[in-house]
Amino acid sequence: MILLVTDFGLTGPYTGQMKARLATRAPAVPVIDLFADAPAWDPMLSAYLLAAHAPAFPEESVFLCVVDPGVGTGRRPVAVWADQRWYVGPDNGLFELVVRRAREVEAWEITWQPESLSASFHGRDLFAPVAAGLAAGEQTPPGRPAGLTRCPDWPDDLPAITYVDGYGNAMTGLRADRLGEGTRLAAGGRTMKRARTFADVAPGEAMWYENANGLAEIAVNQGRAADIVGIGPGSPVEIMTPDGERGTVA
Amino acid sequence: MILLVTDFGLTGPYTGQMKARLATRAPAVPVIDLFADAPAWDPMLSAYLLAAHAPAFPEESVFLCVVDPGVGTGRRPVAVWADQRWYVGPDNGLFELVVRRAREVEAWEITWQPESLSASFHGRDLFAPVAAGLAAGEQTPPGRPAGLTRCPDWPDDLPAITYVDGYGNAMTGLRADRLGEGTRLAAGGRTMKRARTFADVAPGEAMWYENANGLAEIAVNQGRAADIVGIGPGSPVEIMTPDGERGTVA
Amino acid sequence: MILLVTDFGLTGPYTGQMKARLATRAPAVPVIDLFADAPAWDPMLSAYLLAAHAPAFPEESVFLCVVDPGVGTGRRPVAVWADQRWYVGPDNGLFELVVRRAREVEAWEITWQPESLSASFHGRDLFAPVAAGLAAGEQTPPGRPAGLTRCPDWPDDLPAITYVDGYGNAMTGLRADRLGEGTRLAAGGRTMKRARTFADVAPGEAMWYENANGLAEIAVNQGRAADIVGIGPGSPVEIMTPDGERGTVA
Repeated sequence: MILLVTDFGLTGPYTGQMKARLATRAPAVPVIDLFADAPAWDPMLSAYLLAAHAPAFPEESVFLCVVDPGVGTGRRPVAVWADQRWYVGPDNGLFELVVRRAREVEAWEITWQPESLSASFHGRDLFAPVAAGLAAGEQTPPGRPAGLTRCPDWPDDLPAITYVDGYGNAMTGLRADRLGEGTRLAAGGRTMKRARTFADVAPGEAMWYENANGLAEIAVNQGRAADIVGIGPGSPVEIMTPDGERGTVA
Repeated sequence: MILLVTDFGLTGPYTGQMKARLATRAPAVPVIDLFADAPAWDPMLSAYLLAAHAPAFPEESVFLCVVDPGVGTGRRPVAVWADQRWYVGPDNGLFELVVRRAREVEAWEITWQPESLSASFHGRDLFAPVAAGLAAGEQTPPGRPAGLTRCPDWPDDLPAITYVDGYGNAMTGLRADRLGEGTRLAAGGRTMKRARTFADVAPGEAMWYENANGLAEIAVNQGRAADIVGIGPGSPVEIMTPDGERGTVA
Repeated sequence: MILLVTDFGLTGPYTGQMKARLATRAPAVPVIDLFADAPAWDPMLSAYLLAAHAPAFPEESVFLCVVDPGVGTGRRPVAVWADQRWYVGPDNGLFELVVRRAREVEAWEITWQPESLSASFHGRDLFAPVAAGLAAGEQTPPGRPAGLTRCPDWPDDLPAITYVDGYGNAMTGLRADRLGEGTRLAAGGRTMKRARTFADVAPGEAMWYENANGLAEIAVNQGRAADIVGIGPGSPVEIMTPDGERGTVA
């Protein structure tokens, strides 16, 4: 299957135009929208989101990822094979955390170019045909083995909000299993205890919990945490020990 | 086909994660988004919406329904066979109106559990695999026959707004064929006459009409009724006779 | 493949209900959302958008188009074969620019009626079954050859904003290849130079460029042009020569 991760937003023709290219080249492959609203123009926040969600998808899945503020500049198009899954998109850090956490990685620079390449929509013109080819069974991308541009300064876990979902829950870039049971998270001027699920706290109360993808997530039972706590993508999150001291990731 | 009815909202990875599970287990079955924005955390309003829309879909359709504020608590997962269609979701009243209006009903408690069950996302981990199995042709759900939790206090028709669509039209929980021709509806401090379609009233005028799914719906010709009348999901609606007296459902 | 172009918005059951009809009649045909938020109740703006995007889709594609403020009135349902693609929808100008720019056109009035035709949702009841039949290989629509209602007063290129995308970029109804290299566009009280892509101007700067579909589009590098410039669908755009005089389309 092909999973779409973009910052196109929910509107506009762009996702449909990519899907038409995919349907033409790989008609039998299911195409699924994973994130259409990855943090806009922000490959770093998107990289933490992608790495948290991708491993649960089947092997051989192809992630077509377009968070690409540098489209039209010299940034390279790449395809990455990491732990039995393909990732296709711009070489701008978007795959940094996937690669860092993977046991096996191979990377290619895509050197193939379509007959017609627009300046602003490589997702449709370049990345979609390559992703469709891989999903249809091609063994290697149309390019040459190449190293990725790496981002050594990015932490393994990001103490920041990466995404606010439709309920107003705020995902962080922190893996919950790296945080001790008594760990508190501070954000928006508020300190929150850990809970197991929404129903463990009173309606309207803020907490953090391990979400269904393994991330620490700030939530309010039957309320919109992002609005109540006053946080959004990019907001810093502080790790606190049970004693109220500054904590760290294990 | 599988129809998705959730309160996940349009954003976030949740619908995509469910679709990946469905595609893995039932790859040949079309999966269609019906409501991604059913009234959040509100199984009652959602139940009236679901019952109004479901009968028009083909027999053997599977409705995968996740409006589930009690996820992670003791509420039971269920599967219901009602008038030749399957309904899979939480036992929290979401299927009350479907069941009440059906001629034939059989219900199961789902006792199967996946190897890995998150505390907060049974839609992906539990309901999607069960729905996919039924859509792929399994004869019965993986569980045991069981009665549903019933909601005897809920009326047969709900005098309230259940949903506001993209045009600002406000659906009620009232079936239009239960209301006399001269019936007026009062909501947001305004009384509205019945019309046949938008074009029957002047641009900007509020009316109610029988929508394409049989529900009484408050609309404004080329205007956003919900904003103009000042109503939204949960707002009460009063039934009035042509003489301006309080009316009732037939 | 079937492409959906509607003003239903992203929410509500309408797109799903159409897709269920398509899946029933043409189960093997991919159905792709192109625009769910075409300019609401505005066949003219939608006509320029449709004509700009349609030619890039494969031959034999079927465009199911529902921007239909006159639903329930006497406006005719039509099907149009233009340059090897089908267009199905209301005869209200929606196909005017497609037809005007096409080399070969044949048009039919749809005379078939379904057993059950709602007053307000011909997209589901009438247009979807016809589109599915054509996508499934029927040679002609169920109707009779007929001329379309034409809109001779509409210009070949529309000096106005037709659409604002998820990034806040504002598409016009002007084809960029009709505008000279030095052409400036004025909108929202501001005059903007042409650029090749976002990265050609400083972050925050407004410009116009030829977008990936050949339209002149007003954009701001890493900013929301529509908000910054103060424009939206329907806003007028003025063509200016490099000398600051009023210009025209070539």
